[in-house]
Amino acid sequence: MVTRLEEPIEIPRQWYNIVPDLPAKLPPVLDPQTRTTADKKLLHRTFIGELARHEYSGERFIPIPEEVRQVYSIWRPTPLVRARHLEEALHTPARIYYKNETGSPPGSHKANAAVAQAYYAAKEGIERLVTSTTAGQWGTALAFGCSIFGVKCTIYMSRSSYEGKPYRKDLAEGWGAEIFSSPSRRTAVGREILKKDPNGPGTMSIAKSEALEDARSDPDARNAVGSIMNFVLATQTVVGEEAIAQLRGLDDYPDMVVGCVGGGSNFSGIFWPFYRDGVAKKGPKRVQFLGAESSAAPKLTKGEYIYDHADIMRTSPLFKMYTVGHTFVPPVVHTGGLRVHGTAPTLSLLRSRGVIDAVAYNQLEAIEAASFFARTEGVLPAPETAHAIRAVIDEAKRCKSSGEKKVILFNLCGHGLLDIEAYREFNSGKMKANDADPAEIKKSIAEVKALYPWLYQ
Amino acid sequence: MVTRLEEPIEIPRQWYNIVPDLPAKLPPVLDPQTRTTADKKLLHRTFIGELARHEYSGERFIPIPEEVRQVYSIWRPTPLVRARHLEEALHTPARIYYKNETGSPPGSHKANAAVAQAYYAAKEGIERLVTSTTAGQWGTALAFGCSIFGVKCTIYMSRSSYEGKPYRKDLAEGWGAEIFSSPSRRTAVGREILKKDPNGPGTMSIAKSEALEDARSDPDARNAVGSIMNFVLATQTVVGEEAIAQLRGLDDYPDMVVGCVGGGSNFSGIFWPFYRDGVAKKGPKRVQFLGAESSAAPKLTKGEYIYDHADIMRTSPLFKMYTVGHTFVPPVVHTGGLRVHGTAPTLSLLRSRGVIDAVAYNQLEAIEAASFFARTEGVLPAPETAHAIRAVIDEAKRCKSSGEKKVILFNLCGHGLLDIEAYREFNSGKMKANDADPAEIKKSIAEVKALYPWLYQ
Repeated sequence: MVTRLEEPIEIPRQWYNIVPDLPAKLPPVLDPQTRTTADKKLLHRTFIGELARHEYSGERFIPIPEEVRQVYSIWRPTPLVRARHLEEALHTPARIYYKNETGSPPGSHKANAAVAQAYYAAKEGIERLVTSTTAGQWGTALAFGCSIFGVKCTIYMSRSSYEGKPYRKDLAEGWGAEIFSSPSRRTAVGREILKKDPNGPGTMSIAKSEALEDARSDPDARNAVGSIMNFVLATQTVVGEEAIAQLRGLDDYPDMVVGCVGGGSNFSGIFWPFYRDGVAKKGPKRVQFLGAESSAAPKLTKGEYIYDHADIMRTSPLFKMYTVGHTFVPPVVHTGGLRVHGTAPTLSLLRSRGVIDAVAYNQLEAIEAASFFARTEGVLPAPETAHAIRAVIDEAKRCKSSGEKKVILFNLCGHGLLDIEAYREFNSGKMKANDADPAEIKKSIAEVKALYPWLYQ
Repeated sequence: MVTRLEEPIEIPRQWYNIVPDLPAKLPPVLDPQTRTTADKKLLHRTFIGELARHEYSGERFIPIPEEVRQVYSIWRPTPLVRARHLEEALHTPARIYYKNETGSPPGSHKANAAVAQAYYAAKEGIERLVTSTTAGQWGTALAFGCSIFGVKCTIYMSRSSYEGKPYRKDLAEGWGAEIFSSPSRRTAVGREILKKDPNGPGTMSIAKSEALEDARSDPDARNAVGSIMNFVLATQTVVGEEAIAQLRGLDDYPDMVVGCVGGGSNFSGIFWPFYRDGVAKKGPKRVQFLGAESSAAPKLTKGEYIYDHADIMRTSPLFKMYTVGHTFVPPVVHTGGLRVHGTAPTLSLLRSRGVIDAVAYNQLEAIEAASFFARTEGVLPAPETAHAIRAVIDEAKRCKSSGEKKVILFNLCGHGLLDIEAYREFNSGKMKANDADPAEIKKSIAEVKALYPWLYQ
């Protein structure tokens, strides 16, 4: 007997934009100075023009430029894999599928967004893109994209990752990017923070402030971002669009779609198209969407849905989002990509409406699951992805108890070949859970509210 | 206008065996003791039964078990990519395509063979596979395959790589394998070599001897191999079969197929199906097959086509192959996978008949080309693959001079994410060419001939 393993499909021709299908209008982005909707010009001064336009677009579909599809063809379409060996090892009646996004040159789904940003930057004559990265998945992805399209690339990488993940730094440099440990002495923000705490590990929020300052001080540069913004999340929907087509070929459909959540880009990339499918059918909620976050930055499970800045220096406008507060410094964990205080406004709105479920795991729980996955399914996951895998395994175990033949789909959004240290530390027994301190979260959220009392009356 | 980037295809259902299509019978494998054809029982005592049967099979096609295809579906079919950015950067009229084999969980084409060997081992109740690896691409691939099918895995890794590529070692351990620096104290061979030279870098040949001794001393173990043997090369033909189908969808066909050559597995995997195509057409030689080897172990360009052992302890029988002699110790280079003294008997026969062309590059020439490729096409190649890329770039430059619109296909057989040291060393200007000493090669070949004068009269 010959098994249908995967239906051959083409690379999608359009990205999907969830905004017109949201259950409510997205709360406006606010300028804390004027207390009104933030000036769209600011967006255009900060980001690539075409993408700033996408941010506010009411169009459901955005055509993918052929030059971008051509670069996608280096690793796309990505396999949709039935995790049969994992199912067998868990003795679960659940059917588990994953999109294998690990084959991109930098090793994660971040390449989907990076190629789009580098392409539009080159097209608009922008000479340099400046960005921030924590674990380095986004930074290396942007370096990759910029290298192809001949755009200069500057990366601020949280010190904890810069020192802990030297391969990612070397890789970005290999693609011609310049990369700096954040906080750095290159920006006023960095210098100020170093003065207060010369040995701090850095955070995504600090790195973001440095990147913004650098980009805004150079008229030929723009800020590139790896998550949070609508225009970034939209470029990740190639993952979900492919999954829908591939599952159709197998006559299957998920009951649950799972992704890990930092800023929300990989999770949104896989679930948005299934959400649209549900909206189109106008039926009862068919698919459960589950975001798995890190207990070191648990905005969806322990944060609040309030207006907050995206960066520690409050240079970004205010976004309404689930946040643990922009002054909160998450404990250092190997899952750098999830160490971010707030999550995407679109994801946050859906969470506030009960469309999204969430669960938080610490790094021990996540890496344990990822090790099990690596030994059964053969792919070594990035520590971020490990959180989604933990959620999937827990659900599959519940199915074992209940006998439910649930179909679970998740995004295996990155490999861990350059995160071997995390596995080494886990195996040595020295890894700590490093959960966030609830009192610190409370304090940080109170600080945000105290800044803008007019918003929280 | 919408470009056809890739024709969606399925994972192949059979491996191709070149043996019945060779221009002559393969010279017999000889037992130096009896001076006659080696006992097939030895093959069965050493290797997995089903694969030992494949080794002598006259069947043109071998069905791929569904369980193997299911594991292949984690990363296969792999993309066929048109290297447009490279073409543009070189201003060449040539059309350059590559098969992107970098998406496999261990990061190279070696996974194609490893999955097959682990599957058959499990099916035959073999408890443990023992192997040798230099750069670690094969070792990690076998660890990956064994992990999935629940087979124990023991790896002997040349000391130079064991110490120089710690991530590969960790990765193999992450998949549950045990891995030892070779020469080791675990085998009589290793102990003897350590006595003579306690600080030697090790070679593929030494590691192979240790793996053979270990496997033969345990009735529940067998030797797994990553190249050279027909049965290994056959399992790599999924690469070429997919390429044929994908190019057919694009109405294109190569004038030249290029691969780097160590033992010959990735090169054979991509060119065999095109060779069959040519045989079937009975026309004039249509496609040029070019093997790019390392100048540190230049058997195809500087070696001789003679009978030689596969390992330094002469425990293997004698294969007729292009060799620089089994006592030759190649200079240490970053292209560990090409540091092997002899190449596949099938490839050697074809080379002796003029079906295969060959070229040798040193690591400076190779890494320079790979860096250029990484910055134009975005994929960071493994140092081994870099040799094929150098050959492709040189050919594309010749096409620029001649105006020829040659279609060049090559196998991008592995990524360099875990070989960052090679790029770092190259960029620092400290890398040396490390060509083999021709006098040493001459001496080593003379030693082989002196051992078996009855063979070389």
